[in-house]
Amino acid sequence: MRKNNSILIIGSVAVDSIETPFGKRESVLGGSATYSSLSASFFNKNIGIISVVGRDFPKRYMSLYKARGINLDGLKIAEGRTFRWKGNYNYDLNSPRTVYTHLNVFADFDPEIPRHSETSKFVFLANIDPDLQRRVLSQVKGPELILCDTMNYWIDRKRKSLLKLLKNIDMFLLNESEARLLSGETNLKKAAKFIMSYGTPSVIIKKGEHGVLFFSKHFSFSAPAYILETIRDPTGAGDTFAGGMLGYLSHVRKINSPNIRKGLVYGSIMASFVVEDFSINRMLKLTKRDINKRYREFRRIASF
Amino acid sequence: MRKNNSILIIGSVAVDSIETPFGKRESVLGGSATYSSLSASFFNKNIGIISVVGRDFPKRYMSLYKARGINLDGLKIAEGRTFRWKGNYNYDLNSPRTVYTHLNVFADFDPEIPRHSETSKFVFLANIDPDLQRRVLSQVKGPELILCDTMNYWIDRKRKSLLKLLKNIDMFLLNESEARLLSGETNLKKAAKFIMSYGTPSVIIKKGEHGVLFFSKHFSFSAPAYILETIRDPTGAGDTFAGGMLGYLSHVRKINSPNIRKGLVYGSIMASFVVEDFSINRMLKLTKRDINKRYREFRRIASF
Repeated sequence: MRKNNSILIIGSVAVDSIETPFGKRESVLGGSATYSSLSASFFNKNIGIISVVGRDFPKRYMSLYKARGINLDGLKIAEGRTFRWKGNYNYDLNSPRTVYTHLNVFADFDPEIPRHSETSKFVFLANIDPDLQRRVLSQVKGPELILCDTMNYWIDRKRKSLLKLLKNIDMFLLNESEARLLSGETNLKKAAKFIMSYGTPSVIIKKGEHGVLFFSKHFSFSAPAYILETIRDPTGAGDTFAGGMLGYLSHVRKINSPNIRKGLVYGSIMASFVVEDFSINRMLKLTKRDINKRYREFRRIASF
Repeated sequence: MRKNNSILIIGSVAVDSIETPFGKRESVLGGSATYSSLSASFFNKNIGIISVVGRDFPKRYMSLYKARGINLDGLKIAEGRTFRWKGNYNYDLNSPRTVYTHLNVFADFDPEIPRHSETSKFVFLANIDPDLQRRVLSQVKGPELILCDTMNYWIDRKRKSLLKLLKNIDMFLLNESEARLLSGETNLKKAAKFIMSYGTPSVIIKKGEHGVLFFSKHFSFSAPAYILETIRDPTGAGDTFAGGMLGYLSHVRKINSPNIRKGLVYGSIMASFVVEDFSINRMLKLTKRDINKRYREFRRIASF
C-alpha cells in the first residue's frame, strides 16, 4: 500500500485586482490557498484545499484547480461574494498599496476538514486568524509536518494567540519585517531564536529578492533568490514559495537537512516563476521540465 | 623566480569616530585603504598602499600596517591633519549619519605610485574621485586585475568621469543603491547590464546583510551573507570585503569562475569578521585558521 503523503492547505481563495508598473488585471484568481496549492501540485497529486468562496466565484476558476488535480471537497460555496482584494505596486515591487480588502464570505470562514482529509500528513496553515489555525490543528490526526504562515495584521492584533500556536507547529513562515515585528529584534538570527523559544522547532524567514533564511536547533540555511530580470506581479510569491517547499517535502517524505534545503530552493524557484506573470498565469504554462531546468541554473548561480 | 602577484591599493587612511548602539570609539583607525589592505594581508604578503595622512597620524597606527607586512612607501605624510570622519549608526546598522567629514590633507590627495609598485598586478581603486582613479591607472604597467569602487557622491557629481573609467577596469564594485542610482534601473540584473554596457566586464553588487551579486558576460553568481548575530560596527565592511576578495584572487592568481566565486565568499567572510568589533580590532586578533573555519561554516550554511 502506498503511504499517505497528502497535503492539506487552509487559506484564502480570492478574486484580485492588481496594478503593477507592467500592467493591470481585473478580477483574476488569487488567494493564499490558490497560489500554494497550485505550486504544490507540481510535486504532489494528493492535495486538498479548505477555503470558502461566494456564489460569484467563476466556474472556470474551479476547473483550473481540478486540472491540476487539486481536491475541492473542502472548498465551501457560501451565499455572498468571494473575498476580493485590490492592490497597486510601485516600481520597487515591494509591499503593495491596498486599494481595498473586501473579506465578504471569508469574514465568516470557519474551516471544516472533510472526513477523508483529517489524516493528511502535510498541512499548510496559510495566513488566517491564528485562532482558526489552531482550530484546524485540532481536527487533523497525526500530521507529519505543519507549516504555518502569518502576517503583520495578526502579529499586531492576535499576538498572544499566535505565540501560543507556535508550540503546535513544525515550521513557522514569516517575512523579514514580520520576524522583526514579532520578536522586537532587528537581527534576524536573534529574531528566529526568539520565535523558536515559543516552541516551534524551525523558522523560515522570507526576504523576497534577497532569498530565504532557515533556522532550527540543528542547522541554519541561507539561500539567495533566483536572479530575475522581469518581475511583473509579486502577488502570491510567498504562498507559491510555501506550496513549492511543502510539495517537495511531501514528495520526498523524509524531513531532514538536505531535503529541507532542497525544498526551500524549490520553493524559491516556484516563486521565481509565479512573479514573471500576473496572477497564477505563469503556473498554468509551467512544466516539471522548466522547474528542474531552473533548479539546475540556480545551483550554478549559487554554488562555490 | 616567483611570479609577481603584488597588490596595490589606492584609497583613504582616516581617523574615525564611531557611535553605534553597541558603544562608541574616538579617533580609531579607518579609511578604505586601511580596511582593504589589512583584509588582503591575510591572503597576500606583497601589498602596498597609496594614500596620505597628516602629521597628527599616530605612530602606533603605522606599526599596525607594518605588523601585517603592508608596504607604506606610498603613504605620504603631509603637513596638516589626517582625514577625519565621524558617524553614528542606528539600530538597523544600515547607512550611518555622518556627523562630520574633514578631508584635511586628503582634499589634495594626488596619488603617486612609487617606482617599484608600478608593476603591481592586482590593483584596488578604492572610493576616491574617478579622475584620480584614472590618473592612477595611467601609472600602473600591465596589471592583471583592476577592481574599482565608488560611492553615491561620485555618481552624483562625476557621473561622466565614472562611466568613462569603466572601460579601463575589470571589476566594478558598488552597493545596491549605488547600482540603482548609476543605472536608473530598480532591477539589479538590469542595473548590472547597464553598467557593463560602459565597458567593465564584470560588476559586483554588495547587498550588506543580504550578500553579494556578481555579473559578467560569462556567468552570474549570488551568495548570501554569513549569518551574524552580533554586528558592533559596520564601518569598513565593503572595503574589507574588497580586500579579502582581491587578496584571495591574487593568491590563487587564476581569475576564473570557481576562483571568483570563492574570492567573493572569502571577501564576505572577512567582512563578517570586521563588523564584529569596532574599527579594525577584529582583524588584529584574526587568524587564517579562524577564516578557514568560517569559510567551511559558510559552505554548510549555503549548500544544498
